[in-house]
Amino acid sequence: MLTNVEHIGIAVKSIAASNELFTKLLNIAPYKAEAVESEGVTTSFFKVNQTKIELLEATTPDSPIAKFIEKKGEGIHHLAFEVNDIRAEMERLKGEGFTLLNETPKRGADNKLVCFLHPKGTNGVLVELCQEIKE
Amino acid sequence: MLTNVEHIGIAVKSIAASNELFTKLLNIAPYKAEAVESEGVTTSFFKVNQTKIELLEATTPDSPIAKFIEKKGEGIHHLAFEVNDIRAEMERLKGEGFTLLNETPKRGADNKLVCFLHPKGTNGVLVELCQEIKE
Repeated sequence: MLTNVEHIGIAVKSIAASNELFTKLLNIAPYKAEAVESEGVTTSFFKVNQTKIELLEATTPDSPIAKFIEKKGEGIHHLAFEVNDIRAEMERLKGEGFTLLNETPKRGADNKLVCFLHPKGTNGVLVELCQEIKE
Repeated sequence: MLTNVEHIGIAVKSIAASNELFTKLLNIAPYKAEAVESEGVTTSFFKVNQTKIELLEATTPDSPIAKFIEKKGEGIHHLAFEVNDIRAEMERLKGEGFTLLNETPKRGADNKLVCFLHPKGTNGVLVELCQEIKE
């Protein structure tokens, strides 16, 4: 089950500038900043009700975010749904014909296990599944 | 106040095909279909917790959705936030330097008054404000 729109990821050139912009837009401050070295990004999070807005800035030139901005400019990068059992959901979606970009869950920002679906199979939308890591 | 991520609008070539796809992805059926003639679109809605996924198909060649797909292909088209008082929020955002694409609220899908912000001022994200019409 996809139980919630957990967050919307937005690719930006400068977290510093975009933090200011989104603070004005949403009229709230970001509540967290976090680097995900394995993805070559720094992130910043805002919370609106039960959904987060995640700003992503590339920290390396070969980061997926750097490539996205180069190709498409700044904008919405991915749409993330919360799941309770990511492995079960990955199996289900594979069975439905979707292509997983990672065959095993990987560690994402915000204490999550994540899996991405190939946007060619989802009308151009990069879909992320994410499950909170409970330790 | 932007109180909720009300919906995410996704531009698709065929509502019929995408309804099937998103039914598989979300494992739920769309709950509503609606045409918005003034915008040249037909829409289909899915609900995930408190956020809707709105699929949009162009019904005329000069529809904003037709132009979007021509330029960028299928994908996420806009991000809509719920507001309680759309006129007050439009005033506030104008004061913060954002550019409104319509100076007065207009009627959107799903019984809403809506206003769009120019994506040049919001990191390439087409932001919609929407307020439910209570009659």
